Amino acid sequence: MALIVQKFGGSSVANADRVRNVAKIITDTYKAGNSVIAVVSAQGDTTDDLIEKAAEINELPSKREMDVLLSAGEQVSASLMAMAIEKIGCPVVSLLGWQAGFQTSSGYGLARIRTINTARMERELDQRKIIIVAGFQGLCKYGDVTTFGRGGSDTTAVAIAAAMHAERCQIFTDVEGVYTADPRKIKNAHKLDEITYDEMLELATLGAQVLNNRSVEMAKKYNVELEVLSSYNPVPGTIVKEKIAMEKMLVRGVTKDNDTARISIVGVPDVPGVAFRAFSKLAAKNINVDIILQSYGHDGSQDISFTVSRANADSVLELLKDDFGTVLIDTGVSKISVVGAGMESHPGTAAKMFEALYDVDVNILMIATSEIKISVLIKEEDADKAVAAVHAAFFK
Amino acid sequence: MALIVQKFGGSSVANADRVRNVAKIITDTYKAGNSVIAVVSAQGDTTDDLIEKAAEINELPSKREMDVLLSAGEQVSASLMAMAIEKIGCPVVSLLGWQAGFQTSSGYGLARIRTINTARMERELDQRKIIIVAGFQGLCKYGDVTTFGRGGSDTTAVAIAAAMHAERCQIFTDVEGVYTADPRKIKNAHKLDEITYDEMLELATLGAQVLNNRSVEMAKKYNVELEVLSSYNPVPGTIVKEKIAMEKMLVRGVTKDNDTARISIVGVPDVPGVAFRAFSKLAAKNINVDIILQSYGHDGSQDISFTVSRANADSVLELLKDDFGTVLIDTGVSKISVVGAGMESHPGTAAKMFEALYDVDVNILMIATSEIKISVLIKEEDADKAVAAVHAAFFK
Repeated sequence: MALIVQKFGGSSVANADRVRNVAKIITDTYKAGNSVIAVVSAQGDTTDDLIEKAAEINELPSKREMDVLLSAGEQVSASLMAMAIEKIGCPVVSLLGWQAGFQTSSGYGLARIRTINTARMERELDQRKIIIVAGFQGLCKYGDVTTFGRGGSDTTAVAIAAAMHAERCQIFTDVEGVYTADPRKIKNAHKLDEITYDEMLELATLGAQVLNNRSVEMAKKYNVELEVLSSYNPVPGTIVKEKIAMEKMLVRGVTKDNDTARISIVGVPDVPGVAFRAFSKLAAKNINVDIILQSYGHDGSQDISFTVSRANADSVLELLKDDFGTVLIDTGVSKISVVGAGMESHPGTAAKMFEALYDVDVNILMIATSEIKISVLIKEEDADKAVAAVHAAFFK
Repeated sequence: MALIVQKFGGSSVANADRVRNVAKIITDTYKAGNSVIAVVSAQGDTTDDLIEKAAEINELPSKREMDVLLSAGEQVSASLMAMAIEKIGCPVVSLLGWQAGFQTSSGYGLARIRTINTARMERELDQRKIIIVAGFQGLCKYGDVTTFGRGGSDTTAVAIAAAMHAERCQIFTDVEGVYTADPRKIKNAHKLDEITYDEMLELATLGAQVLNNRSVEMAKKYNVELEVLSSYNPVPGTIVKEKIAMEKMLVRGVTKDNDTARISIVGVPDVPGVAFRAFSKLAAKNINVDIILQSYGHDGSQDISFTVSRANADSVLELLKDDFGTVLIDTGVSKISVVGAGMESHPGTAAKMFEALYDVDVNILMIATSEIKISVLIKEEDADKAVAAVHAAFFK
């Protein structure tokens, strides 16, 4: 008898019909002879509604009280899901984070899981009950409710799968899996059967946000096999695991990320320590820098360009303008990436990507490569054309 | 430094403005040098909304899951209240039922408080924090969330006042206290400064529902001094306690209860055991019988009349019709009562009441008396006139 952990996001449980639909998925898995622990998020916009309620009363409430407030959302959806399963006639029990044994740091709002005391879950499974766990919440050493931040229910599911040695952790979403490109935009984008943790992490960072990064990292660490699949359409999804049997395909996907801005510091002295000074200022403000390009110096001066998320662009200007003279911002850019664990041993990948861009007349502003991805910065207006061309080059 | 327990019902915390208003009451009490523990109910119609959500999914959900669902309502209002107090700048912490140490029976939906582990509340008070407790909820021996049923937040407040030896337990409502009659209908109805527990219990039963009965019983048992007062108008309310200094006033109040129906079993044999058979059938279905009148037998047969709540009238007919021939139901009746601990030593009270009714031409259908109350059943259409007349007779 296998243990399957299933996670259903807010849109999958947004109303009574969807709750019933998910209850059927859970009970079908149970009736097929499995033990099931299902993790649910708050219904639809519940979390945003609660945040709004709080803002009406206090624009800067303590994180401790926000956690008490927000965790109520998952509490409601967990009990409703249990009721839907009772209606179908299967034995079920809902557990809040602290009941499921989640012990966390006291970093309210963004708590880290320390351990999971699995005794209660094991006892309920021994009685052949389906367990519904309220996602995204735990209890810290002070006896206070904590939450894990956005996407925290994914983390809850993966942590349970790891602690309970589940056979698989299924993450149900509104898409059928991980695609080689955005299927709404690229006609011949196709679903991947399998993908590695590292590839999944790169895809998440690059904007193909089907899985919360922290949960993928945790899955990798504890070797939890994930499956991303649809709660609306019962077809096999994409398996995320450590190693993929066949490395037929070099590239797993092509992504576009418009949330990027290029900063250029023009004409800085060509002496050691300049780049260090600039980036340590940004690091002190927790501003992540992505692609970095340092021009070859000439006439004793040089240019430094890098990208940050658009929300940070103005702060960067503010931080650097006094010390570095001319600082230019360009928010009309987009980052296109190809991701694939196989490409590191195939040097032709970059060339193929650049050729595809050249063929459709797209100019490359910056380039960055890692072992499993190649990213280029281009004009935002070229982005969709570029993705289509690159995708077509790799996926005939 | 006195400890004051305050309780605020759902309408007192229904929206952001009212939450702010209550936060001011709490912090004013705190700033006056008191320790404060405030108990809050779910906001406005939250509980009904949650019940509706459940009904959409399962018309007969388990009580265990209903308790998980409903307790979320108080969780939301407790955290919002804490945020409002943070905004004012006083130290505060919200506690859910299980965090406040409420250990209960496992009678889901109507759990009884077994003990309160006060360690956490004491620790928070030692740090001079205001404590906001989510009302109506606790934890049973199975580690499950339980709720106390309607009016359960009153019980939470009184139980805390008893366990923490509070100086007073203030129950804030939308009226200014306990009145001699409904002030919206009787012009010269006036607020009572004091009332005994027993009188309060009778008034609650008789429809002047400002306090939950269970909480009054608990207050009596542990000798907790209650005060019923308004969260809108800051004037002294009505104190509920064991003994009242001056017994000047015989009668505390006149009440009307329209939720009553008269059942008559006509022409049953005048032999022993008939009444017993009828009432044991009702008892088996948990149907409470109020006033009972058994006619003097003649011609070997007699009539038995009694009252039940209107919701039970049809069930009673169903239960009795086969065994008892003619069973009549009259739902057009109302019960008028005068309540007062002083009346037992003043035999003139009943006569005065009956005279007042006679003077306004109201016919009495049934009479019941106890040590501290006299009730009469009359036609519902006469009820308002009757209350006015009786009230005028006792309160010039």
